[in-house]
Amino acid sequence: MIPENIIGKSISRVESAEKATGTAVFTADMKLPNMLFGKVLRSPYPHAKIVSIDTSKAEALPGVKAVVTYKNSPSVIFNTAARTAQQKINQVDDEVIFGKVVRYVGDEIAAVAATSEEIAAEALTLIEVNYEILPAVFDPLEAMKPDAPQLHDCKNGNNIATLIKLPMGDVEQGFAESETVIEQSFKVPVQKHCQLENHAAIAEVSHNGRITVWSPTQTPHTAKNLLAKIFGLPASKVRVLNPPYIGGGFGARIGFCGKTEPIAVLLAQKTGRPVLLSYDRKEDFIASDTRHSGYITVKLGAKKDGQLKALYINAVLNTGAYASYGPDVIAVLGTTNCSVYRVPNVLFEGSLVYTNTTTAAAMRGFGNPQGNYALECSMDILAEKLGLDPVELRLKNIIKPFDKWMLPYPCATSALEDCIQLGAKSIGWERRNEPKVPVNHKVRGIGMACGTHVSNAGPWAIQYDNAYLAVQQDGSVLVTVGITDMGQGSATALTQVAAEALGVPVEKVHVLAGDTDTSPHSLGSNASRTLYSAGLSIINAADKVKQQILDFCAGEFGVDSSELSIKNGIVSCKDPNKGQLKFEEVCDLANHKDLQFVAVGRNKLSNAPPWIAHFAEVEVDLETGEVEVLRFVAAHDSGKIINPTIVEGQIEGAVLQGVGYALSEQIVYNDKGQQAQDSFHEYYMPSIKDTPEIETIIVETEEPSGPFGAKGVGECAQVPVAGAIANAVANAIGDRINELPMNKERVLAAIMQKEK
Amino acid sequence: MIPENIIGKSISRVESAEKATGTAVFTADMKLPNMLFGKVLRSPYPHAKIVSIDTSKAEALPGVKAVVTYKNSPSVIFNTAARTAQQKINQVDDEVIFGKVVRYVGDEIAAVAATSEEIAAEALTLIEVNYEILPAVFDPLEAMKPDAPQLHDCKNGNNIATLIKLPMGDVEQGFAESETVIEQSFKVPVQKHCQLENHAAIAEVSHNGRITVWSPTQTPHTAKNLLAKIFGLPASKVRVLNPPYIGGGFGARIGFCGKTEPIAVLLAQKTGRPVLLSYDRKEDFIASDTRHSGYITVKLGAKKDGQLKALYINAVLNTGAYASYGPDVIAVLGTTNCSVYRVPNVLFEGSLVYTNTTTAAAMRGFGNPQGNYALECSMDILAEKLGLDPVELRLKNIIKPFDKWMLPYPCATSALEDCIQLGAKSIGWERRNEPKVPVNHKVRGIGMACGTHVSNAGPWAIQYDNAYLAVQQDGSVLVTVGITDMGQGSATALTQVAAEALGVPVEKVHVLAGDTDTSPHSLGSNASRTLYSAGLSIINAADKVKQQILDFCAGEFGVDSSELSIKNGIVSCKDPNKGQLKFEEVCDLANHKDLQFVAVGRNKLSNAPPWIAHFAEVEVDLETGEVEVLRFVAAHDSGKIINPTIVEGQIEGAVLQGVGYALSEQIVYNDKGQQAQDSFHEYYMPSIKDTPEIETIIVETEEPSGPFGAKGVGECAQVPVAGAIANAVANAIGDRINELPMNKERVLAAIMQKEK
Repeated sequence: MIPENIIGKSISRVESAEKATGTAVFTADMKLPNMLFGKVLRSPYPHAKIVSIDTSKAEALPGVKAVVTYKNSPSVIFNTAARTAQQKINQVDDEVIFGKVVRYVGDEIAAVAATSEEIAAEALTLIEVNYEILPAVFDPLEAMKPDAPQLHDCKNGNNIATLIKLPMGDVEQGFAESETVIEQSFKVPVQKHCQLENHAAIAEVSHNGRITVWSPTQTPHTAKNLLAKIFGLPASKVRVLNPPYIGGGFGARIGFCGKTEPIAVLLAQKTGRPVLLSYDRKEDFIASDTRHSGYITVKLGAKKDGQLKALYINAVLNTGAYASYGPDVIAVLGTTNCSVYRVPNVLFEGSLVYTNTTTAAAMRGFGNPQGNYALECSMDILAEKLGLDPVELRLKNIIKPFDKWMLPYPCATSALEDCIQLGAKSIGWERRNEPKVPVNHKVRGIGMACGTHVSNAGPWAIQYDNAYLAVQQDGSVLVTVGITDMGQGSATALTQVAAEALGVPVEKVHVLAGDTDTSPHSLGSNASRTLYSAGLSIINAADKVKQQILDFCAGEFGVDSSELSIKNGIVSCKDPNKGQLKFEEVCDLANHKDLQFVAVGRNKLSNAPPWIAHFAEVEVDLETGEVEVLRFVAAHDSGKIINPTIVEGQIEGAVLQGVGYALSEQIVYNDKGQQAQDSFHEYYMPSIKDTPEIETIIVETEEPSGPFGAKGVGECAQVPVAGAIANAVANAIGDRINELPMNKERVLAAIMQKEK
Repeated sequence: MIPENIIGKSISRVESAEKATGTAVFTADMKLPNMLFGKVLRSPYPHAKIVSIDTSKAEALPGVKAVVTYKNSPSVIFNTAARTAQQKINQVDDEVIFGKVVRYVGDEIAAVAATSEEIAAEALTLIEVNYEILPAVFDPLEAMKPDAPQLHDCKNGNNIATLIKLPMGDVEQGFAESETVIEQSFKVPVQKHCQLENHAAIAEVSHNGRITVWSPTQTPHTAKNLLAKIFGLPASKVRVLNPPYIGGGFGARIGFCGKTEPIAVLLAQKTGRPVLLSYDRKEDFIASDTRHSGYITVKLGAKKDGQLKALYINAVLNTGAYASYGPDVIAVLGTTNCSVYRVPNVLFEGSLVYTNTTTAAAMRGFGNPQGNYALECSMDILAEKLGLDPVELRLKNIIKPFDKWMLPYPCATSALEDCIQLGAKSIGWERRNEPKVPVNHKVRGIGMACGTHVSNAGPWAIQYDNAYLAVQQDGSVLVTVGITDMGQGSATALTQVAAEALGVPVEKVHVLAGDTDTSPHSLGSNASRTLYSAGLSIINAADKVKQQILDFCAGEFGVDSSELSIKNGIVSCKDPNKGQLKFEEVCDLANHKDLQFVAVGRNKLSNAPPWIAHFAEVEVDLETGEVEVLRFVAAHDSGKIINPTIVEGQIEGAVLQGVGYALSEQIVYNDKGQQAQDSFHEYYMPSIKDTPEIETIIVETEEPSGPFGAKGVGECAQVPVAGAIANAVANAIGDRINELPMNKERVLAAIMQKEK
C-alpha cells in the first residue's frame, strides 16, 4: 500500500468512463421485464373542481392495464418535498396524488398504464372530465387580498401558507440611529432547473407488497418514508434507489420528482407489473418544481461612514399551487441574507403565498439568490447615497468569524475579505469609475455582489446523515451513504474522503450512494450538504473502524491500544519491534480470527457558511438593450477543497445558471394561467454564446466543523451572480432596473426612460 | 403496536405469494438489457493435456462475441468452494478457470458468449482441440497407490489432497481394555444434490471495472472475495447478490455454482456486455459438486455390558478432480461421528483422495451422513455381538451435556435420550423382534440410527456473521444479512427473530439477504448455521439498538437508562409517571432530534449440537430385492423451534434425500470416466411413490448459545437416515449389505447369498 495525500487532488470522476462512452444508464433507459408505461392527464385550467370523470373508454382501449384517478387512489395528504420539518408546526401538507380540485395548469387528474407510451397517450384522450371552473389568481400580492380566490384553507391569512418573522436586536431603533436610510423593492421571476434529464421513475411491487422505486430523487430516504406514509406501509417495506446515473438535479428532485414516484407506484400496484413513468420536457416545465418568484423589499440604515445600523427585509414569495419546500425556502432567504453583514438590528418578514401557478420549491440556493439580488443591489444604492465605493462599504461591514448573527451555529471561518480583494483586483475594479463612453453604441460596466450560504440543512430541517463503512477482508473499503450523486461528483469526492480518513488508496475504496436498502438514513443531497454532511459521517465511521483496528492490534501485539497508530497504511507500535502490520495484513488476520471491521458513522450536527464575492464586467448595447457578460470573477471560500476540478465545475455551472437568472430566464403566465415557457424554444437558458470568461478564485480556509476542513459549494456560486450583474448594468447605464430578468426589453426601457 | 410472542409460531413464509403465483424470478429468468448467453466446452476425456486449441472458426461465427480459453483468462489458482480455511495450512487451491490439463469428463476447456444460446452452442462445435490423453484413475484406493496416475502434486502421498488425524485418549489401550471388538468396512456412493434450479449466474462489468454478479450462491461474501482474488480487483469493487429467488442449494452452491460465476465474469469483461451462463441439467450433473463417495471402516470396542471403550474410524473419501470443500467434509465426518457416544479413546484418520471424477464437495451434512451410516451400522453389529438391544446399547453410551468430547465447544444441551425413547415408542420398537414371516414374499424390519451434527461452521471454518439493523423513522425495521435464502425459509425465521428481539410486529420487519452491497460479511448459508448464526448477529444488533433507545429515552425522560425497559412495544420508566413512549413514538422523536437507531451486530463464535434419532420400518421383497420404507419416525432436538412448519419441512425433505441415498441414488463411472447418470432418467431420486409416512417428533431444548435457544436443523435430518434404513433392512433379511445404495440388485444378491 502506497500512502498518498488525496485531499485536494483532482482525481478523475468515478463515472467518467461510462459517461464518456455513452453507456451510462439513466432512469428512462432501464427496461424491466414486463414493464408498462405510464402517462398523466393534466388540468387545462388553473383552478377547477372535477364534477365528474369517466374513464370507461380509456379502460376499454386495448393495451391499457390501469386507469387511476382520485376515485381509486390513496387520499393521504402529503408534501411532495418529502420534508419532515424540524418543528412539526412548520409542516405544511397540502397535496394528494389526485384530488377533486385542480389548482394550476398541469395539475394531475388521472394516469394510465399501458403496454406502450403511445397507447397510454391515446388513452388519456379518452378520459372524459367535467369541470366546474373556479376563479384563479396568479400574483402573490393579489392572492393575499381577502377577496382573492382561496386555494387552501390557511390560518395565517388568505392563501398564506407560511408567515415567518426573524428578529435580532431592535430594528426600529436601528433605523432611528441611522443617518442614511434607503429602501427599495425588487421583483424576481420564476426560474426553472432545466436539469438535462426529465423527471422519471420506475415502480415495481412484489407480491408480498414490498415496493421498489428507481428514481433520480436527491433524497431517497425521505422519499421512501413519504411513499410508506402515502401507501400505508412500514418504511422497511419500501425501497427507493437511484438508477445508475442521474442527469442533474439542482433541487428539482428533492423529495419526489414531480409526482412520478407515487403515480408509478399506484399504477404498479394496480397492474402488478413494473411501470415506467417518464415526463416529457413540457410536463417537466409545467408540472414540476420551479424557483420561487416574488417581491422583495430591502431597507438599510447606516451611519455616514457606512457603518450599518439596521436591516429590514420583506419577502413575499409565490409558492404556486402547493407549499412543497416553500417554508424552508423563505426561511433560508431570510437567515442567509441577514447574515452577510454585521448589522446589530435586523428584521426579516416573509410570506409564502399560494397562487394558481406551478408549484415553486427548492432550487439551488433555496431563496438565497432572490434575497441576495435585492440586498446586494440595495448595498450599491446605499453606497451611492453615502458616496462610498461599493467594495469599501462591503469591506467595512462584512461578518467576521465569531461575530454575533441570528444563526444558531457559529461563523468559524471566513475568507470573504480576501475574496473581495482578490476579486476586485482580478476584475480591475478601479476601471469601474472610468467615464462611460459608448463604443458602437455599447457601454461597459463593472459590478460586484457578495454573500454567504450554508453547508447543511439545519436549523431549518432535520439534518442527520449516517454512513456505513465495511472494511473488506483484503483491506479494501465499501462505503454506503444515502445521498445522491446526480452529476455533481459527490461519489468521487466522498471516495477521496474515505480513502484519506482510513489511509488507503482511492482505488481500493468504493462508495455506494442513493439506495435505501444499502444505507442508513440520510437527508440526501441538498442544501450544499452532500460532501459536508456525508463526508463527516464517513469520517466518523472511519474513526470507529480505526479504533476497532487499534483494539484488535493491541490484542495481537500485547500492548495497550494507546501505544498504536495507523499511518501510511501501516499499524505500528511506538516501539516498532513490539508489532507492525500492513493495513491489509491486519484485515486478513482479523478475518482468520472471525472479525470484520465495520461501523456506522454519524455526522456532526453542524453547519458552516461558505463565502462568495462575485464580480461581473458587462457590455450594454444602448440601441437594443442587450446585455453581454464579458468577464466574470468568482472568488470563493468553501473551506478546504477536496477535489478542485469538481469545485471549479460546480462554480462555473452555477455562475452560468445565475447569468440566465439575471438576464433571460423566466416563466410567465397568461390570463388563463398557462405557462408561456414550456420548452427550451421559449425558455431562454444561456447558451455557449452567452457564456462569459469565468475566472474562479479559491481561497481556502480550514473549517473546523467540516470534513477535512471543507464547507458547502454546490449552491453558493449562484447566489450573488444576479446582484453582481445588476450592479454592473447599473454602473454601465447609470440607472437601475430592480426586476429580473434584465432582458433587453427591460434594459432598453430603462435606457429610454433615463434618456427622457 | 400490539405485542405478540412470535417465536415458535408457524407464520407464512415471506415468499409464499410469489412462489404460489409463479411470479418468483430465478437467475435464468432475469433479462438484462443487451445480455449475451454463455456456453461451456467440456472435456470428453477424464484426464488429458491440451496440446493445441484453435478458436478462430468459433470466433468467426456471426453472433459470437467472445471465446475464452486458458490462453486469455486469469491463471490465478483457487478453490471453487471459496473457502478461506481457518488454518491457512488447510487451504487447498488447485483450480484455475481454464487449465491446460483436464481432469474429469466435463472439466472446463473454453467458453463462448453469443447473442443466443443456440449460437453459443454451435460455436462450441467449431472449437478445435488436440488432446494428449493421459492415464486416469477413478477409485480413491487405486489412486493412492504410488504408481497411479498423478492428478496434482501432493505432499501427503500420491493424490492425497488432505490427511487428517484426530485423536482423543489412547485408542490402542481402549481396544486392549475392550472385551468385545468389532470392525467393519463400508462403501458409500456419489450422491447428487439435484436442487430444482440448475446452476446459473449473470455477470455485468461496468466501465469503471466494478463487477456485479447475480448468482444463487449460498455464500455471496466468500464468492465475492474469491472473484476479487481471481480477477485482481479490490473486494469492494465486486458485488455478488442473489437473484430474487433460488431453487434449492443443499450445499451445491457454497462458493461458486459450478464455475458459472468466474466464467460469466470473464465473458462479460471480454464483451463489455452482461452475460448469462446457465448450465443445463446434464452439465449440472457432470460438472458441479457431488457428495463424496468413499470407503469407511469402523472399529468399536466395548465391555461386555456394552460400555464403549474405543472407537476408530478410517475414511478414504474420493474428492474427484479438485479438492473444493473436501478438507472440511472429511473433518466434519470425523468430529461429528466421534461425538455421538461417550468413548474415552477415539481416533479418526481421514484421507481425501483425488481421482478423475467429478469434484465432490459440500452436500447436506458435510461427510456426516457417510460416517453416520458406517458408525450406526457398526453399533447394530456390536449390539448383536453383545446380545444387547440396539436401543439399549445406544442409551447406555450416548453423550450427555458437558461430557468430554473432541470438539472445542461444549455440548450444552441434548434431548437425544428423549428422542430415542419417543421414537422407539412411536415406531413400535418392540415389534422388531417378532418372527420374520414373509407375506406375499415380503418381510418387514425395523431399524434405528442416531446422531448429531452442527449449528455453525467452526472450528473447521471462519464462522463469523454480521447483521445490520436500521430502525426506520416510523418504527419499522430493516435488517440485512449476508446469508442466502435458497428456499429453506431462513428469511422468514430471521424476520421472526428480529421482531422478537426488538418487540415489534413481524409485519414491520423486513429482512434483506444475500447481497454483498447491503450486508456486512457473513459466511453464508451452510453448516446448518443460517438461522443460528445470522439469528445471533441479529439479536446482537437488536441489543445494541435497544441500548441506544434506552440511552435516548433516558435523556428525554431525565432518568438513568437503568431505570428504563422496553416491553410490549413500549419504553417506560420503572415509575411510569416519569416517562413512557411507544416504540414508534420514540423513533419519530429521535428523528426530529437527528437520530436514527442503527447498529451492526455480530454473532457469538459458538456452535452447538442438534441431536437426531431416526427410526425406519421397511418392507423387503424377497423375490425382487426391492426395499420400501413404510414408515419413518424422525425425532429431533434442534433446540427451541422458531417456526415449526419450516422445521418440519426441512426434516421431511432431508429424510427423503436420505431415503434416496440409502436405496437408489448414485453416480457411477464407466472405464472411460463417463458418468452413467447425467439426467433424472438415470439418476433415481425417490418420487412421491417412494415417500414413506414421515412422523416428525420435536423435543425442544433451550440451547444457551443459540438465538432464543435454537440450534441447527437444515442438514441433520439427512444424517442418520441411511443407517436407520440399513439397520431395518438387516433386521428384515437377517443379513447386512454394507454398501449404499441398497438397491434391489444388492439386496437381492444379499438375500440369495444368505439363502445359500
